[in-house]
Amino acid sequence: MANKILFPRIYILASLLLLVSSTNSFGQKNSQNTPNFVIIFADDLGYGDLGVYGHPTIRTPHLDQMAHEGQKWTNFYVGASVCTPSRAALLTGRLPIRSGMSSAKSRVLFPNSKNGLPANEITLAEQLKKAGYSTACIGKWHLGHKEQYLPTNNGFDYYFGIPYSNDMDHVGKRNYKELAKEGQKAIVKEDYNVPLLRNTKIIEQPANQNTITKRYSEEAVSFIKENKDKPFFVYLAHNLPHIPLFASKDFLGKSKRGLYGDVLEEIDNGVGKIIQALKEEGLAENTIVVFTSDNGPWLPFKTHGGSAGLLRAGKGSTWEGGMREPGIFWSPGKIKPGVISDIGSTMDLFTTFSNMAGVPIPDDRVIDGIDLTTTLLEHGQSPRESMLYYRENELYAVRLGDYKAHFITKGVYGQFGGKEIHNPPILYNLSEDPSEQFDIAEDHPEVLTKINELVAAHKSKLIKGKDMLAERE
Amino acid sequence: MANKILFPRIYILASLLLLVSSTNSFGQKNSQNTPNFVIIFADDLGYGDLGVYGHPTIRTPHLDQMAHEGQKWTNFYVGASVCTPSRAALLTGRLPIRSGMSSAKSRVLFPNSKNGLPANEITLAEQLKKAGYSTACIGKWHLGHKEQYLPTNNGFDYYFGIPYSNDMDHVGKRNYKELAKEGQKAIVKEDYNVPLLRNTKIIEQPANQNTITKRYSEEAVSFIKENKDKPFFVYLAHNLPHIPLFASKDFLGKSKRGLYGDVLEEIDNGVGKIIQALKEEGLAENTIVVFTSDNGPWLPFKTHGGSAGLLRAGKGSTWEGGMREPGIFWSPGKIKPGVISDIGSTMDLFTTFSNMAGVPIPDDRVIDGIDLTTTLLEHGQSPRESMLYYRENELYAVRLGDYKAHFITKGVYGQFGGKEIHNPPILYNLSEDPSEQFDIAEDHPEVLTKINELVAAHKSKLIKGKDMLAERE
Repeated sequence: MANKILFPRIYILASLLLLVSSTNSFGQKNSQNTPNFVIIFADDLGYGDLGVYGHPTIRTPHLDQMAHEGQKWTNFYVGASVCTPSRAALLTGRLPIRSGMSSAKSRVLFPNSKNGLPANEITLAEQLKKAGYSTACIGKWHLGHKEQYLPTNNGFDYYFGIPYSNDMDHVGKRNYKELAKEGQKAIVKEDYNVPLLRNTKIIEQPANQNTITKRYSEEAVSFIKENKDKPFFVYLAHNLPHIPLFASKDFLGKSKRGLYGDVLEEIDNGVGKIIQALKEEGLAENTIVVFTSDNGPWLPFKTHGGSAGLLRAGKGSTWEGGMREPGIFWSPGKIKPGVISDIGSTMDLFTTFSNMAGVPIPDDRVIDGIDLTTTLLEHGQSPRESMLYYRENELYAVRLGDYKAHFITKGVYGQFGGKEIHNPPILYNLSEDPSEQFDIAEDHPEVLTKINELVAAHKSKLIKGKDMLAERE
Repeated sequence: MANKILFPRIYILASLLLLVSSTNSFGQKNSQNTPNFVIIFADDLGYGDLGVYGHPTIRTPHLDQMAHEGQKWTNFYVGASVCTPSRAALLTGRLPIRSGMSSAKSRVLFPNSKNGLPANEITLAEQLKKAGYSTACIGKWHLGHKEQYLPTNNGFDYYFGIPYSNDMDHVGKRNYKELAKEGQKAIVKEDYNVPLLRNTKIIEQPANQNTITKRYSEEAVSFIKENKDKPFFVYLAHNLPHIPLFASKDFLGKSKRGLYGDVLEEIDNGVGKIIQALKEEGLAENTIVVFTSDNGPWLPFKTHGGSAGLLRAGKGSTWEGGMREPGIFWSPGKIKPGVISDIGSTMDLFTTFSNMAGVPIPDDRVIDGIDLTTTLLEHGQSPRESMLYYRENELYAVRLGDYKAHFITKGVYGQFGGKEIHNPPILYNLSEDPSEQFDIAEDHPEVLTKINELVAAHKSKLIKGKDMLAERE
């Protein structure tokens, strides 16, 4: 009899505890507990370039620790295999073909490009502003360098950074391939006349790239400390390890991996400083830190480019090496530690973080991002089942579950083979064959049927945005 | 004045503490603190096949945890790129060419081989017996299957295992390539009539390979529990993931990576059981557990073979993928946690563990093993500066510091290119270019000179052992 009386009480107590616990997690309605977000985005980092992703000589103890304490995603994708469209995908949660941020005529934006991210696109920063976040973009923007396109016109309260790639505004007499061959000493910041902006004003030109990584990390730490009493979003997009490579004197010549390793070890050091600041300010448990990169390694630059590890090819291609990146999520007590081999994408950050902040997802447009919350917090199966691999404005490949069909393949820029049309497509099981070596299309016609259906459904609804990359001045 | 008086006292106190601490660490004279050793040796595991070494879909949480709590070596080498000579190298601390355990006529020992490890070779087990260790060999031996060559005649008190490779004694009608194509269900243990021995007696034939991994791990746990009151050495040499692949029903079909992943996840599970047993018995702090493998992945078997990650080629070759392996050292409070990118070798276990146990290194022969103690305990620079890469009885390549010169190259068995002589040799910087892509011989004649000197010194003193592999019955 005692049990009968006790049980309901325990049940009520448990329910109450559950209720308390659910409003204390990233509930949409409790603004007190709205998490902060820090996205650290590297440039041209390979899947295999971090210690915890298998690199033998690049030391990344802080990222390794983040991966150990948090989630290490091993099937995490970018929205495009090159800079501008990949960044547009992350910030809008949409395939760049929808926003006009990918083009058949230009891979990326250049210093003489006329346009940038269309004003009617909604960035993650604009989303989070709706929930009262303080927002900062620190680092590489590359979504338009004219004032109307800059971060401060796209939802960010603050901007500090180089507005495009660090190899643009090239004024040096020699090209980087020649310089790289002569070793790091030959590369001087004066060879690249890239501007450094604070908000919309140029504060330094050429930007001193020797210290840029260090300064970006310090800016992030300062912003976090200044905004610790309200929810904040920091989008820290490093300009490196994109070539030309630079490192500050504390890191230069220190890595066994050479200059590329020096650069990464300095980025890792910055990650450590950000984590430390979050801990010191008591923010670690309510801040989600994500680390990833925009696209795979720039292989033609040899040891000045990174490594995709066991993945095939690199930057520019729709082989895995071009579009699969390290994806590390960290928030002690919130992000459930583990290795996640489900599929995720940078586009999902838009949807996941909007939901966590209680901001409705725009319903007047297609959003490709999917909410990963249950995977991040509870190891639930990722709801993302597919990935579309665009190169410029063509759909080259599609992943559905374990399988990936290539309709078109092409090597990385200038290397590893020209454009090939595959009809019927070639098919790989990425879970069993991550290096894309063994075509199994003949054995799985049923998979190709499903993928073809997915492609047809996608294309039937696709509205291409006006090309924002092609026009130059 | 106070300082002058105080200082010597502090100095004496510090010296005393140092003394206490040094006798409490793996001192040679304190038999109370003589550590236990567990070497877990996989078969044909690739450098890239563990989670913490970068594999995207093989789940190895216990090995990942070991690496996080202990040392993850990223430049850890085997003594040969194929089974028999690699095992001889580990157990004797000597290049197999010295013991006659490599041959120009036969890669490994076969069920009709006449010989095995020469009686005058001294194994690590024989060394540790001199310090009173209980010793067990569990798993694959492959150093001679006749009674005089078995583990119990080579320093091991106990043996339980299959005495050679699990694909030998093939009696099935079809070969493995055909079977593998049909999927795991077609492979039955009856296709391979390999015996399972306890000490010197066959207790099961064909060995039930479906449960062999599980049973090996359980045998190791039992031996540890039975010998917890004296120093012990367990050499647990799994027969898998060498093909044919088998997994017990708890693991079969569970890994996203397919059957190869099932096998590795079962090995990892066994590692977890061993670690757990050591913790339960209070032995963790005085037991060093090492995990590594005999050689790189057997690539021609496609998804039934493993992955060398970013390293080139695999089993059989002297490219890095053939001879560099995961190397994880674990002992909480003793092994200083970290990633070690210095050079180490399985041959060094002989010397390191002999020294830790206080057993003199034999001085009547060349021992190639080097003591890694200061690196393991204090992160001191590894004293190993070079590696010799033999294939059968020819010296194909030499590593000196960051650099590796190839005098001869050849692909993995039946794949990736025939034998090529390089005169002058090709040269790679393995720290900057771990995938051996960019020949820099022209830029570094001084390195080639040093490597040539090293080779000349090595060859001038080399005494080749009598070929123990070639003779068949």
